Amino acid sequence: MIKKAIVLLSGGLDSTTVAKIAINSGFEVYALSFSYGQRHEIELEFAKKISKNINVKEHKIAKIDLRTFGGSALTDEIDVPKDNESSNFNQTSIKKIPITYVPARNTIFLSYALAYAEVVGAFDIFIGVNAIDYSGYPDCRPEFIETFEKLANLATAAGVENSTKFKIHTPLIKLSKKEIIELGIKNGVDYSITHSCYDPIIENENIISCGKCDSCRLRLEGFRLAGIEDELEYL
Amino acid sequence: MIKKAIVLLSGGLDSTTVAKIAINSGFEVYALSFSYGQRHEIELEFAKKISKNINVKEHKIAKIDLRTFGGSALTDEIDVPKDNESSNFNQTSIKKIPITYVPARNTIFLSYALAYAEVVGAFDIFIGVNAIDYSGYPDCRPEFIETFEKLANLATAAGVENSTKFKIHTPLIKLSKKEIIELGIKNGVDYSITHSCYDPIIENENIISCGKCDSCRLRLEGFRLAGIEDELEYL
Repeated sequence: MIKKAIVLLSGGLDSTTVAKIAINSGFEVYALSFSYGQRHEIELEFAKKISKNINVKEHKIAKIDLRTFGGSALTDEIDVPKDNESSNFNQTSIKKIPITYVPARNTIFLSYALAYAEVVGAFDIFIGVNAIDYSGYPDCRPEFIETFEKLANLATAAGVENSTKFKIHTPLIKLSKKEIIELGIKNGVDYSITHSCYDPIIENENIISCGKCDSCRLRLEGFRLAGIEDELEYL
Repeated sequence: MIKKAIVLLSGGLDSTTVAKIAINSGFEVYALSFSYGQRHEIELEFAKKISKNINVKEHKIAKIDLRTFGGSALTDEIDVPKDNESSNFNQTSIKKIPITYVPARNTIFLSYALAYAEVVGAFDIFIGVNAIDYSGYPDCRPEFIETFEKLANLATAAGVENSTKFKIHTPLIKLSKKEIIELGIKNGVDYSITHSCYDPIIENENIISCGKCDSCRLRLEGFRLAGIEDELEYL
């Protein structure tokens, strides 16, 4: 029997790595992206391209409305921090929650993944959370993921009726950005079609990354440490 | 300091009872409804009316797209069961999941409630789940709610940064429909502005309940046992 997996795919470096790992592990992949009023909607175009490139079985984009409530620099008209203003770069313990934190975002994303899993008959959900470089986000921690996995098995008809149990896979959770990139390269990821910038500039259909937001800086530092060239265009 | 609470408000009998209990307990209530492609969208009009009637502080309707995945009689073009076809009426243990089950619905609803709570600074979430009459739904059980509460405190900036912890209130979880109605009457609920039918008929702005779907039958039986007249119009 074919094993099916839901992969949360933002079009970024991490989630693309995870999707490729799921495929290389023999899963039939159902990719799930969200249109959630994010400032960088461009990432959805990347998610579509990547889905084709890596041959997922199906790619769904769920429209959700996180702007209903507001509360984050990623969905509101708040400036995205540049040049380490938010001082959450490379933190190793939870001290300060970055202003790019979106309230309950991963809880909402995983809940949708769970619904999708039930409908297609998957018991495996892959998410590219990372507790090292982005430790400021509470919903990227192992204890959050473990508790969600428990919840998934209590919440669903599938969890109740089957002996197979839901498993939330987080292959990147303890890796540094450098290690993620190295793992991705080993798995055949084409990083030139991924996207990381929170605040990109679009010029004549070219997408130019700012190189200064937390996400760009983390990516560039990862490539530098891995000794690999990042093929994206930067300002 | 004013205590704030999020109340999941569908416009039905249970959630309206819960909203009134929250208000009577001294909470400033932020009501949250969902437009999720449900077949009985009419319930949103009831939710709006009720929000005014009981004086909530704010009422938000989040648009979510559960039809993206399909998989339920409440969102798909599947017939809603009538006259006990689904045989889940008054079950007391989890044996069969009703076809009106929506995959991961309460997980998704509570995740949104959590996001809303974080934004307004609430730590209390009220939900009208019931483990007695609708025991076929896995996401109405106490163990599901307890695990979600644990998740809420791990998932959020608010849960991490504050000594106050999230609490999921389920005042109806162990009550029969008769007991819910009695509790509601004691709390001053006007049930004539609530709505229960899965499959209502709309005639000249009058809403006529079918009287035959599981939800109508449960409601009618509850009023009968409580010895109270249900003022809704039935077919």
